[in-house]
Amino acid sequence: MFKILHTNGSARRGEFHTVHGTVQTPVFQNVGTLAAIKGALSSYDLKQLGCQIELSNTYHLHLRPGDEVIKKMGGVRRFMNWDGPILTDSGGFQVFSLAKLRKITEEGVSFSSHIDGRRIFMGPEESMRIQSNLGSTIAMAFDECVENPAPYEYVKNSSERTCRWLVRCKTEMERLNSLEDTINKEQMLFGINQGGTYDDLRIESMKRIAELDLPGYAIGGLAVGEPQEEMYHILDVTLPYAPYDKPRYLMGVGTPSNIIEAVARGIDFFDCVMPSRNARHGFIFTSKGTMNMRNLKYELDDRPIDESCGCPTCRRYSRAYIRHLFKAEEMLAMRLSVIHNLYFYNNLMSEIRSAIEEDRFEDFRRENARKLSERVDD
Amino acid sequence: MFKILHTNGSARRGEFHTVHGTVQTPVFQNVGTLAAIKGALSSYDLKQLGCQIELSNTYHLHLRPGDEVIKKMGGVRRFMNWDGPILTDSGGFQVFSLAKLRKITEEGVSFSSHIDGRRIFMGPEESMRIQSNLGSTIAMAFDECVENPAPYEYVKNSSERTCRWLVRCKTEMERLNSLEDTINKEQMLFGINQGGTYDDLRIESMKRIAELDLPGYAIGGLAVGEPQEEMYHILDVTLPYAPYDKPRYLMGVGTPSNIIEAVARGIDFFDCVMPSRNARHGFIFTSKGTMNMRNLKYELDDRPIDESCGCPTCRRYSRAYIRHLFKAEEMLAMRLSVIHNLYFYNNLMSEIRSAIEEDRFEDFRRENARKLSERVDD
Repeated sequence: MFKILHTNGSARRGEFHTVHGTVQTPVFQNVGTLAAIKGALSSYDLKQLGCQIELSNTYHLHLRPGDEVIKKMGGVRRFMNWDGPILTDSGGFQVFSLAKLRKITEEGVSFSSHIDGRRIFMGPEESMRIQSNLGSTIAMAFDECVENPAPYEYVKNSSERTCRWLVRCKTEMERLNSLEDTINKEQMLFGINQGGTYDDLRIESMKRIAELDLPGYAIGGLAVGEPQEEMYHILDVTLPYAPYDKPRYLMGVGTPSNIIEAVARGIDFFDCVMPSRNARHGFIFTSKGTMNMRNLKYELDDRPIDESCGCPTCRRYSRAYIRHLFKAEEMLAMRLSVIHNLYFYNNLMSEIRSAIEEDRFEDFRRENARKLSERVDD
Repeated sequence: MFKILHTNGSARRGEFHTVHGTVQTPVFQNVGTLAAIKGALSSYDLKQLGCQIELSNTYHLHLRPGDEVIKKMGGVRRFMNWDGPILTDSGGFQVFSLAKLRKITEEGVSFSSHIDGRRIFMGPEESMRIQSNLGSTIAMAFDECVENPAPYEYVKNSSERTCRWLVRCKTEMERLNSLEDTINKEQMLFGINQGGTYDDLRIESMKRIAELDLPGYAIGGLAVGEPQEEMYHILDVTLPYAPYDKPRYLMGVGTPSNIIEAVARGIDFFDCVMPSRNARHGFIFTSKGTMNMRNLKYELDDRPIDESCGCPTCRRYSRAYIRHLFKAEEMLAMRLSVIHNLYFYNNLMSEIRSAIEEDRFEDFRRENARKLSERVDD
């Protein structure tokens, strides 16, 4: 299902075929936590912004509106009217970052809902059943995401348990895909590598999950507390053990620089709330660096946010107007800014793909990796 | 500038020509208080929804970002990238409904900003200068809007002062339109009829303002506390004294039923925050009546909000999805609902215009006036 079309150094230009369409990689997955994009963007808007694949959250949709509701409505793709591929995370990350009063056993995790405190149990099988109800294109393995740094013994036990959970995920997904009323009988499972900041645990985890011959592999538990140099180091030591011919997904990362550096190391899939979350607070990514739209210097600035940008916001509205909307606390400020930032991320991936195809990715990296994450309006 | 194309009973089908384009009447003016539409809609969205004329608020824009800023940016139309006509209110209504510690004299009103408490003075000349800076197509007279019911003597004094203020507005607008650096030298002034719920004061006010031969006349101070039958009665007694060949604007009104009933009495212009404000709280207008999108009965309802509606929301999203967005407190819930309600209002006006043209407005009124404001999902 994954075809590498071209390589340039360790960077890979690929195509991932799914029952819901083909994804050109490297790709950024646009985050729609609750089957909607924060900042009042719809699935229709995502299409306009060049989004290839949407990401929704198992934990959140399990709580609201409930995965049974979504199954009855024909799955999350039909529910939110998105005809492309969707990846659902497993709920693992949210259980460990949002839910309260967690208790972890070999069986799974019991916790209290962050909405109403209701007691919930989720293990590998529950996560797979929810994701099967959601009917996503790609389901993620149920894992424990450990914050960095954490003690070696804790990470070792956790990472080994995540590997055991992955075997159970695979078995349950195969069972669910064979059932009569399953929405997407070709739902794919991606395994997740863990191991914190410990080289040997990362390598051991990757070796074990690679044996399961899954359609894709993710690196989890990075960008959760460690310096970015440590993240790059973990990629350097772990990726040689990832199956070469399967897509590799770096979860929850990151800045434009992070993405360029990870592509340089052989990563194909990304997702991050940063472009939409930053946008909602007025922080904007541009081809020249980052900007804070609340800055007084934009009060009378008639230019678009980024003069070289072709997004719907830059084609129509000025910095002065967007600054005014933020100062006046108009919701439109968020929407126009999220539109810009998501367009920027999707367009960045498109430029990365072209640079790999044309064997000039190292030049692209040298020119952009630092610049794109630096403030230009200080 | 105003041409009546056809009449049907007292209902008028007209065309209002302005330097910023022609408006087909009866028309609903879409409210963009701070040069943005609440619910994250942009000027581009308004175009898609069939909006002919936008309304912005003098008081709000004077405070943020300031009318001097907007003048430097080329006026509010350029600032928000709206190429059609814009009407600006005078600030009078907001001064009397939002601002604090008001003191009214013959000269004008001093008050405290609702944002930062700063002391501000606004009289007829100040309002005209601000609206001239905004460069709108139509400027509204500076008036006092009295809540109903109010004592006869108070209303009489207030209404007479509003008439005296109108003369000063006209003089100042003529002066401003003759200045070299005025953005819209053909800015038009609409007078405002006041007089509370007192027939004789309403008639006296209308007679006096009609003498000034302005390009349009508004009825203010209605839908501010009185029963709707009283509003219709005031229209019945006042409109015979309004110049027949000038557009008539019923300010801040109202429900679909109110609009149909006012058109039947000869009103041409409307504006109201109701469609956008109600939408943001989940209250939706449809061709069958009103709905509350939070209603449990929509949890699994796969149909569009209104099966006969052609708006971008109804073409793409289900009741179940929109209910979910409201329950999950996603901003997209507001946007999709505001899109629907504004489309509904603009489309209602289009249907009203057709009914007048085709001499079947009374049938249209009988069929719709009651139905459109009744709940269908109780």
